[in-house]
Amino acid sequence: MWVLNNEGKDTWSAFDIVGHLNSAERNDWMPRVRTILENGEAPAFDPFDRFAQMKESEGKSLEQLLDDFNRLRSESLAALQALNLESTDLARRGTHPALGPVTLSELLATWAVHDLTHLHQLSRVMAYQYRDEVGPWSAFLGVLKCTGHSAP
Amino acid sequence: MWVLNNEGKDTWSAFDIVGHLNSAERNDWMPRVRTILENGEAPAFDPFDRFAQMKESEGKSLEQLLDDFNRLRSESLAALQALNLESTDLARRGTHPALGPVTLSELLATWAVHDLTHLHQLSRVMAYQYRDEVGPWSAFLGVLKCTGHSAP
Repeated sequence: MWVLNNEGKDTWSAFDIVGHLNSAERNDWMPRVRTILENGEAPAFDPFDRFAQMKESEGKSLEQLLDDFNRLRSESLAALQALNLESTDLARRGTHPALGPVTLSELLATWAVHDLTHLHQLSRVMAYQYRDEVGPWSAFLGVLKCTGHSAP
Repeated sequence: MWVLNNEGKDTWSAFDIVGHLNSAERNDWMPRVRTILENGEAPAFDPFDRFAQMKESEGKSLEQLLDDFNRLRSESLAALQALNLESTDLARRGTHPALGPVTLSELLATWAVHDLTHLHQLSRVMAYQYRDEVGPWSAFLGVLKCTGHSAP
């Protein structure tokens, strides 16, 4: 199954990647925005639980996960907008449990680049499964040469 | 402008990539399917004109290009479905101007992986522009480590 195959032990399928994005939407982005605004630099953010998605995605189809993403992202963006952040807020700081001090501005940029990292990964995971089916065209298809930049 | 910046001389922006996908939709995929079915192995496919998009995209916004893509892809898929291909058709052959003999099956698989190759590229081109803004999180964002697998 195209959306359920991964890249080997401890790697993610398209299904897992969407589950991870949903989990980040629920547990990570807006909760960390609020932590910065409400608590500042202490305590540090809760670590991202990369296994929470297993329970959250259980029994769902990919279509359901995509519907969830659509709803969760809309809710996040509405909540972000409702904060009426000003440019001075962007310099406010929090503490990442592994990386140390970070700013709200860095968190918001990371939110976008995190999407793009997983889109990058997802395109590779899905393309790789057709590496033989494309025949001689594989020479022209750069994604098939991606070995993963040490995941994702 | 996020969607107009590229990766340097002779590389593509997000806008260029969508223009390329549209150009392939107009000039490449279904025309090559028809060439295989109608003409077989001779003559070879017309070479893909990577510059046709410059004229096709001229004066358009990214939103217009995305609307075009939505319409063109729907038209392509409807045309493909209307062919009522049977499994024996998938082995029919055409001639790629550079790669030589290819099958209809390989062409259809390449259509999908070509999308994914350019999604892979697009995620990199867009993410790279925020490599500084993410601060220390860059260590966790694999897409920022992608150097392009010799384009795309």
